[in-house]
Amino acid sequence: MTIPKFKQLRRSYGFDEVAIVPGDVTINPDQTNIDFKIENFTFSIPIIASAMDAVTDVNFATLMSKLGGLAVLNLEGIQSRYDNPQEILAKITQASNVDVTSLLQEIYSQPIKENLVGERIQAVKKSGAVCAVSIAPANTKRLAPIVAEAKADIFVVQSTVTSARHISKSYRGLIFPELRKAISLPIIVGNCVSYSACLELMRTGISGVLVGVGPGAACTTREVLGVGVPQITTTIDCAAARDEYFNESGRYVPIITDGGFRKGGDVCKAFAAGADAVMIGSVFAQAKEAPGLGYHWGMSHPHPALPRGTRIKVGTTSPLEQILFGPTSVTDGSQNFVGAIRTALGTCGALTIREMHQAEMVIAPSITTEGKSWQLSQS
Amino acid sequence: MTIPKFKQLRRSYGFDEVAIVPGDVTINPDQTNIDFKIENFTFSIPIIASAMDAVTDVNFATLMSKLGGLAVLNLEGIQSRYDNPQEILAKITQASNVDVTSLLQEIYSQPIKENLVGERIQAVKKSGAVCAVSIAPANTKRLAPIVAEAKADIFVVQSTVTSARHISKSYRGLIFPELRKAISLPIIVGNCVSYSACLELMRTGISGVLVGVGPGAACTTREVLGVGVPQITTTIDCAAARDEYFNESGRYVPIITDGGFRKGGDVCKAFAAGADAVMIGSVFAQAKEAPGLGYHWGMSHPHPALPRGTRIKVGTTSPLEQILFGPTSVTDGSQNFVGAIRTALGTCGALTIREMHQAEMVIAPSITTEGKSWQLSQS
Amino acid sequence: MTIPKFKQLRRSYGFDEVAIVPGDVTINPDQTNIDFKIENFTFSIPIIASAMDAVTDVNFATLMSKLGGLAVLNLEGIQSRYDNPQEILAKITQASNVDVTSLLQEIYSQPIKENLVGERIQAVKKSGAVCAVSIAPANTKRLAPIVAEAKADIFVVQSTVTSARHISKSYRGLIFPELRKAISLPIIVGNCVSYSACLELMRTGISGVLVGVGPGAACTTREVLGVGVPQITTTIDCAAARDEYFNESGRYVPIITDGGFRKGGDVCKAFAAGADAVMIGSVFAQAKEAPGLGYHWGMSHPHPALPRGTRIKVGTTSPLEQILFGPTSVTDGSQNFVGAIRTALGTCGALTIREMHQAEMVIAPSITTEGKSWQLSQS
Amino acid sequence: MTIPKFKQLRRSYGFDEVAIVPGDVTINPDQTNIDFKIENFTFSIPIIASAMDAVTDVNFATLMSKLGGLAVLNLEGIQSRYDNPQEILAKITQASNVDVTSLLQEIYSQPIKENLVGERIQAVKKSGAVCAVSIAPANTKRLAPIVAEAKADIFVVQSTVTSARHISKSYRGLIFPELRKAISLPIIVGNCVSYSACLELMRTGISGVLVGVGPGAACTTREVLGVGVPQITTTIDCAAARDEYFNESGRYVPIITDGGFRKGGDVCKAFAAGADAVMIGSVFAQAKEAPGLGYHWGMSHPHPALPRGTRIKVGTTSPLEQILFGPTSVTDGSQNFVGAIRTALGTCGALTIREMHQAEMVIAPSITTEGKSWQLSQS
Repeated sequence: MTIPKFKQLRRSYGFDEVAIVPGDVTINPDQTNIDFKIENFTFSIPIIASAMDAVTDVNFATLMSKLGGLAVLNLEGIQSRYDNPQEILAKITQASNVDVTSLLQEIYSQPIKENLVGERIQAVKKSGAVCAVSIAPANTKRLAPIVAEAKADIFVVQSTVTSARHISKSYRGLIFPELRKAISLPIIVGNCVSYSACLELMRTGISGVLVGVGPGAACTTREVLGVGVPQITTTIDCAAARDEYFNESGRYVPIITDGGFRKGGDVCKAFAAGADAVMIGSVFAQAKEAPGLGYHWGMSHPHPALPRGTRIKVGTTSPLEQILFGPTSVTDGSQNFVGAIRTALGTCGALTIREMHQAEMVIAPSITTEGKSWQLSQS
Repeated sequence: MTIPKFKQLRRSYGFDEVAIVPGDVTINPDQTNIDFKIENFTFSIPIIASAMDAVTDVNFATLMSKLGGLAVLNLEGIQSRYDNPQEILAKITQASNVDVTSLLQEIYSQPIKENLVGERIQAVKKSGAVCAVSIAPANTKRLAPIVAEAKADIFVVQSTVTSARHISKSYRGLIFPELRKAISLPIIVGNCVSYSACLELMRTGISGVLVGVGPGAACTTREVLGVGVPQITTTIDCAAARDEYFNESGRYVPIITDGGFRKGGDVCKAFAAGADAVMIGSVFAQAKEAPGLGYHWGMSHPHPALPRGTRIKVGTTSPLEQILFGPTSVTDGSQNFVGAIRTALGTCGALTIREMHQAEMVIAPSITTEGKSWQLSQS
Repeated sequence: MTIPKFKQLRRSYGFDEVAIVPGDVTINPDQTNIDFKIENFTFSIPIIASAMDAVTDVNFATLMSKLGGLAVLNLEGIQSRYDNPQEILAKITQASNVDVTSLLQEIYSQPIKENLVGERIQAVKKSGAVCAVSIAPANTKRLAPIVAEAKADIFVVQSTVTSARHISKSYRGLIFPELRKAISLPIIVGNCVSYSACLELMRTGISGVLVGVGPGAACTTREVLGVGVPQITTTIDCAAARDEYFNESGRYVPIITDGGFRKGGDVCKAFAAGADAVMIGSVFAQAKEAPGLGYHWGMSHPHPALPRGTRIKVGTTSPLEQILFGPTSVTDGSQNFVGAIRTALGTCGALTIREMHQAEMVIAPSITTEGKSWQLSQS
Repeated sequence: MTIPKFKQLRRSYGFDEVAIVPGDVTINPDQTNIDFKIENFTFSIPIIASAMDAVTDVNFATLMSKLGGLAVLNLEGIQSRYDNPQEILAKITQASNVDVTSLLQEIYSQPIKENLVGERIQAVKKSGAVCAVSIAPANTKRLAPIVAEAKADIFVVQSTVTSARHISKSYRGLIFPELRKAISLPIIVGNCVSYSACLELMRTGISGVLVGVGPGAACTTREVLGVGVPQITTTIDCAAARDEYFNESGRYVPIITDGGFRKGGDVCKAFAAGADAVMIGSVFAQAKEAPGLGYHWGMSHPHPALPRGTRIKVGTTSPLEQILFGPTSVTDGSQNFVGAIRTALGTCGALTIREMHQAEMVIAPSITTEGKSWQLSQS
């Protein structure tokens, strides 16, 4: 009997399963530089707000830009389907748990209004903010010209899973080099999770890649489809693709780990795993300025036949500025993300995010962290 | 001191421990073909309803066939022991938790009526459905002629563990090549879990293999006997046996992963692991048309001396058609299984189930999935 | 920098982490032979009741022998310290959780009465049962002559951890070959957990080894001392020692896995891992005939300065005969242990316990068993 | 395509994931010697009380010294900021959960009074105790002369993570060889977690290293920063550094595992992993003599912008002497730590702590310990 070929499974890891090892050298947090670049844009903090309706609207995008980061406005959401999004958001937050999915299905079945696409972009631009917008692959050709005309700064093509080659009966697959020529804006594409898919996307000439499928708090892709890779492994693999592509092309295409963050520690781990920036949803939905009014839901949630998401009540905690910069008296890692990033870099002796990519990590399931059971049993 | 030989243990994996990695190419779900074949029978969906009394009766088998799948009628159950099964089913569902096992032991101690075997088969056939029936190995010789005479289409020989070689004092072991000659129907045999047992079964000339011991929701084989292999590893091993057998014989014998499915994601993972079809019990017991009236129990449950099972209350959720095809506003993966299969194939760039067998998988314990703890703590 | 030597840790496994793989051949359970031998004694079932005060007294030992197994009478417990043990047992079961440990410390500080040692042995012998008795190493020299005179059949030297070489200020280490010469009875020694300690014990000429440190339900050795090895790994390692010793000496010294069993499945796994017999405590404390009256406690529990144990309420379920042989309507594996052993052997195609040692096992954490979460959420 | 370089993650382990394997030889606990040495100081028990305000004040340090161990007085805490610490401690224990962190931030923002530094040290010295004091790196130069003048015995430089090379804008990094020359006291430095960081610290000429980042019961460093390594792996790695340094220099620099201990078993495991001593916080905060009055909090808790800690209610259990030496009727491992250490050494045949470093350990997740689920379900 010859030895058969069995399918091999590789172990993958999520935030809760790893920890960062302090370095042999340490530096003071105030010495660190945590800039993040996409082509000619430089952001002073490597944090991007998700293109989700509970997180980013015009006001939130303006504020995020002012604070040194970036927010992505979803052009397939409520903002570009409704003249008065406030009313719709209120309806969603007031719906019962039983009714909310069918309500979302109905709300998101309304057409995208092209005039609203232009208006929202211009509103962000008027404030002086950098304007990033997100469109699904199938709508890209139709909406790209409007986006370019309204002078958005960064174009994000995003769906649950995006590959460089997509086969469809109903529309011709999106060719990224053609898109780039057509609109001449930096293009960020996602989401992807594997080394090879990420490398192939980078080779199309795009400017950034969103990594992560299934980790978000409001996402049930893994339950419904069985699809998804935990974020630490995803980030490590796509970082390897970025480095490989840099070696072959001389062009450094940043990767943005998208989804699943709950605490500063998670964010620090993403950087140690190789991320150039992080995209945050549910934690920002908790900000006082978030349009979700204390609720959050995913963009695959309203799918008409196979919804994949949950509306979760995240509550409203504090202003965005405090979530990002503190100071805080909260000790669970949910505030002062920037302070946490700088302190983690200092602990690892990293002056920059790229030096942080070299930090050592260990597999250390949080379930076994010493002493912690005490806290639980005592509180 | 020489180095001793210690028993080696191989790590095995279940549904909740793995996830599917999206492909480098993606295709639209409507491009996929998910046909499943057993000899000359082609089914438009690769889903089979279990030979369990809470799932399949004549009506359910008829409906399942109409929807493109297959259901297996258990000839050792209530349907062939009682003229009026409805009455018995009502008794089971009304029994208390304390009394139900002894009630089942009594109910299943009544003799199988040969006339009912014929009647049930003819009722399914009359509706135009494909008729598959299940018999335990020990009763096969006695009942096979009746089944053949009643013109069932597919013959399933099924017990907790079935091997090609069985040693018994009380009856001569079942010889599958002889059985095949005697009844000239496609024979599906199970359950088995290992590469070698599966390969040996295929070499007897049978037409399909059921894989899985111990995973079902209503089964306690693992508690009582310590026996059982998680479904992903079982499926990978038996798929390797199928491929090996195909190489040596040119005959493709499908494997059907049987038991333990709760969500669309589980089903998709079985296909990625190598399944040609899946056999579903407890989820179908939730269908409006299921004979179990919101309850489910296993076929090893009524064993007179060593019962291995639990009656579980699964509830009644929606019509079978909606469980299979949606549309749905449920986001936990318990409805629209066919949509989930097609979408997962699309995500992996697989046009067919056999292409899906090539999808990459990772070990990714769901307990560590990022963000998910939030949902739990918030809901 | 040279590569340093880091301490290596080997992964070990307990009952809940493994499962048995069915064989390529199956046999009917009634074909199996599950005899167990210690020197010239043959038992028709490979099950031994623990030398614990809540489990074995004269009556229980008599019954266990009649049913084909063996029970070990603890000569350091209540039976040999008190003329009227019933009274003491009642006190223990009536004590509050807060007081019970200090009560046990007091009760077990009373001296062992040599006359009672003889009386208890003779009572067992009078019933026609095989009489096995247990003594701690430190008391062995003093009590061995009395035991021999009273004509016990099997001598068990047992403490939490016993090695072939013990260093003490207060007494000369026990030399097993000398002991054997002195009393000329089969000697079983334990407990040990490692290959080398087991092999060394066997080389002293003893007749059986108890394996297992820390797993018992009423034991907190692992919390207090950090010491203990899960039972599957322990059994595999000591089975390798037994096989090695058999190769070098031609003498087959059985190993008895002691402690931690809750269900038939656990027992079956111990045999698949290499056990020749199992020693059971807490499950037998549930028997109607057990002296513990529904409670159970460990023999390290009354230690005067460093107690290691818990009194647990196990309840009283059914007569010992039903726990061992059924029939039962309980489906959680807690009854009909013998039926479970025979069925597991049949499933693996093993005619004897020694053939069962060849069964394949997989690592399959029960926490991930498919479908099982359903049961929990529904019940 | 060349094979890319993916970041590798090493598996690390905490107390709950490992267990000690008994030895081939056993010795009586009263034969063991558990001395611990720092330069010329010899302590009869290898246990140090943490430099935390809920654990060590003048009285506690005096008592600990009398009992054979050592306690470290934190010179950056309440004792050296307030003339009347009692009042402040009462405030902390009376604050609500919501307010406590901001209260701590305020309390710890008051200046360290140099006169109190001297007074506290002299009070400890007057009692005849060995006096160890702790200072953060940034304050070391300022306070070291005062400490030396007051004639403290041992100088501890401690912060969350300390490296031999620290880069700062605001102060020149601490040079340990210079410090040693300046104060000529034994210097213990920490905390560190890796082989290389530990080795580098030892090469600066210091006298002891504290190992452990993030494990403590009152610490949330891992949530906030993602930084931390479980204690068993940390101890193994730093023990390897100690042995390497001993090989290269002939000087034996002890490592002290600091934090995360809850039970005697944890302490025993630290010694088996390579620790020369252990530093204990929360368990000692439970002592009748502890200044925390039944509460405990970490020293990173009051950080003004990024607090990392929790105030936990530990309760008050028994006098320190009983926690250390028993006797006890508590069976969960929380009392008689010294008895547990001696018994574990005996079980492994180790006469000294350094022999205990050779004990074998296995990976054995406590979650899978046999039988233990019973205790939970029954109690």
